Amino acid sequence: MKKIEHIGIAVKDLDKSNVLFAAIFGKPHYKVEEVESEAVKTSFFQVGSNKIELLEGTNENSPISKFIDKKGEGVHHIAFAVDDILSEVIRLKKEGFVVLNETPKKGADNKLVVFLHPRSTNGVLIELCQEIIG
Amino acid sequence: MKKIEHIGIAVKDLDKSNVLFAAIFGKPHYKVEEVESEAVKTSFFQVGSNKIELLEGTNENSPISKFIDKKGEGVHHIAFAVDDILSEVIRLKKEGFVVLNETPKKGADNKLVVFLHPRSTNGVLIELCQEIIG
Repeated sequence: MKKIEHIGIAVKDLDKSNVLFAAIFGKPHYKVEEVESEAVKTSFFQVGSNKIELLEGTNENSPISKFIDKKGEGVHHIAFAVDDILSEVIRLKKEGFVVLNETPKKGADNKLVVFLHPRSTNGVLIELCQEIIG
Repeated sequence: MKKIEHIGIAVKDLDKSNVLFAAIFGKPHYKVEEVESEAVKTSFFQVGSNKIELLEGTNENSPISKFIDKKGEGVHHIAFAVDDILSEVIRLKKEGFVVLNETPKKGADNKLVVFLHPRSTNGVLIELCQEIIG
């Protein structure tokens, strides 16, 4: 794990939350992106060398909508940047962690992503992400 | 807000979680610290330029024990480093955020800390922290 790439925060209303977090950080989000396969709209804020990603579900079956139904708005995941996502998945499986998707999938922000099951990581949904080159 | 200083994760058993997160990060925690005023034992991992703080309540009245009773283990707060915590508190109050402790208190890792109420910040408990100099 090289660094915290971003923290993902589940929100009910992206437009409202963009205003809220712009007030917290003292500057606006720098981009928005929709990931149709995950049924989410996202926005990104830069804070130092990290990013904060806000996520709103675009329908009731979105993982984000289900998360909010169960737990309310709040921190949804922590994403760590890795150089080689496949070898990290192998390493973490050997360590006993439960991987939610063994085959990396395309996430927001031009990344390949894999999630670890929060039951194996003290309740924290951990995302591994690797920048897609080219 | 200069940067994410650390992410705080509430855990039931610090010793067990230290082993777990060492396996995730591929390296052990670099220090432990008890904050008696908050009734917590903490440990710190360095990940890139950020820290991960694990927190275990030392008695049932600890804010961490209460958090786990209500929500289970998981991300407890996000701490942002600021240069001038008093002026940040004034700025954020003007923006309408609810401050949990107006007078900064001594937290772990030689910091003055102020928390914003998660009801005013999309369910995210935000800590502002300023390094104590001298």
